[in-house]
Amino acid sequence: MQIIHTISELRTALKQQPKIGFVPTMGNLHAGHIHLVEIAKQNASCVVVSIFVNPLQFGANEDFGSYPRTLEADCEKLKAAGADIVFAPNVSEMYPQVTENKSNGKNLNQSMTITPPPIASELCGASRPGHFAGVATVVMKLFNMVQPQIAVFGKKDFQQLFIIKEMVKQFNLPIQIIAGETMREASGLAMSSRNGYLNEAQRTQSAQLNAALQHIAQQLKNGHQDFTSLEKTAAQQLNQNHWEVDYISIRSANTLQPAQAGDKQLVVLGAAKISNNLGGKTRLIDNLEVHI
Amino acid sequence: MQIIHTISELRTALKQQPKIGFVPTMGNLHAGHIHLVEIAKQNASCVVVSIFVNPLQFGANEDFGSYPRTLEADCEKLKAAGADIVFAPNVSEMYPQVTENKSNGKNLNQSMTITPPPIASELCGASRPGHFAGVATVVMKLFNMVQPQIAVFGKKDFQQLFIIKEMVKQFNLPIQIIAGETMREASGLAMSSRNGYLNEAQRTQSAQLNAALQHIAQQLKNGHQDFTSLEKTAAQQLNQNHWEVDYISIRSANTLQPAQAGDKQLVVLGAAKISNNLGGKTRLIDNLEVHI
Repeated sequence: MQIIHTISELRTALKQQPKIGFVPTMGNLHAGHIHLVEIAKQNASCVVVSIFVNPLQFGANEDFGSYPRTLEADCEKLKAAGADIVFAPNVSEMYPQVTENKSNGKNLNQSMTITPPPIASELCGASRPGHFAGVATVVMKLFNMVQPQIAVFGKKDFQQLFIIKEMVKQFNLPIQIIAGETMREASGLAMSSRNGYLNEAQRTQSAQLNAALQHIAQQLKNGHQDFTSLEKTAAQQLNQNHWEVDYISIRSANTLQPAQAGDKQLVVLGAAKISNNLGGKTRLIDNLEVHI
Repeated sequence: MQIIHTISELRTALKQQPKIGFVPTMGNLHAGHIHLVEIAKQNASCVVVSIFVNPLQFGANEDFGSYPRTLEADCEKLKAAGADIVFAPNVSEMYPQVTENKSNGKNLNQSMTITPPPIASELCGASRPGHFAGVATVVMKLFNMVQPQIAVFGKKDFQQLFIIKEMVKQFNLPIQIIAGETMREASGLAMSSRNGYLNEAQRTQSAQLNAALQHIAQQLKNGHQDFTSLEKTAAQQLNQNHWEVDYISIRSANTLQPAQAGDKQLVVLGAAKISNNLGGKTRLIDNLEVHI
């Protein structure tokens, strides 16, 4: 397995590769990421995993600085999983010539960005303005560096997956997007690098988010179509249990628009903050697809 | 020479091509376009020319509807010039599923776009809001369809060329951009499809725009650095000669920022409207690079 830090070395290493599979990550890898690597291996002859904590997708008050960076341990896991290339650029390689021209408010030399679709300002985008523009922009850059035939994204970030699929379609990228299932702890908690901010008691509590989504999913399967009421009840119960709910939302899985009576392919999404081990709050997200 | 109308046929035709040269156009080809095709032929083994009048880059009051469409004559010229493939998609192939979802105000199914750099709202962008977002978006789409190694753009659209180069750099596209010189009539008039809107007298008058830029270029070479005064004088003289000047601007050729005293690489750009043969006005642009 090669560990590469520059774009030019990456391009050299990938020349002549007939079928490249790509898994973009922010590192601090867990079983969820490894599952995506396994999917890539099944669908490509050369698997590239990028590790890059992208400043462009973090808000000013978010955890860019403290986001866990564990390159050595990540590379061990990727080697064991059979990845071929780890691409771990630094910020100035991705956004060269950091200048005083604060075109994007972040002092990065990226004055051109991808404008995401309107859905990017709903759900997670409502409380993270600019997040999906930052995600789409860095993914477009990475796609152009790696030029994969297939790329694998996790369903845990369901809205991100939706927007990346839209980007591929609307910009005619010759890339097949494959979605990987969410990996979970035995408690139902969706695996996430941000779980590392939680102590054991908090981690136990954090399974309540998935339980709330499961409860809604069951109600939907039982034929309930009072979506707003289901959303409100779940949010209230979480808030009563010391969560700070951002949203609980039942949507059409194919369009991410609010669910309509009669929709058969639904997804229940939730985001909420929970007290963490650092004396602050950690924002967790989860979702469940519901086929009726 | 193949004439192709669909993306899937294009991809099939380009599979296994080792070096693709690409010239994107809006058709109605003149010697300026043919010059770009010749440059592409010198630098690639397979030359693709696209012909697509892109609605996304036209304003509501602009000439999208009346823009000249002359596919048959264009193909004759391209065949003679040695192009290998003409890609002439229709609007629904480029922006599929035209829907009632007017996400971009134009009823096109393109809710994701490229946000151009701040310079895109100056010069031509000041009077054509959204123009360069539309250009960058369609060029990104075409690049992803054609996947060329080189692409050729004319210097006549100097600001467009600048923004495309920025896009390639900032999105890490593996494409070399080559600039083609502006082709001119004997009068100095820059060749443009929009010259077709002018009768003979108007065409004669239209050479005044280039003459004004030539005059400024000479003054700059003579050591004048009173940029604002040079711009104003030229604009006033054109306005007195029945032009409606949009801008005359002296800029740094490398950054497109307003020229500073001591800059050695300059470009003088102009845009102005002239009475046309249809009872309205035609907006012409031109520019000259000045190396001091």
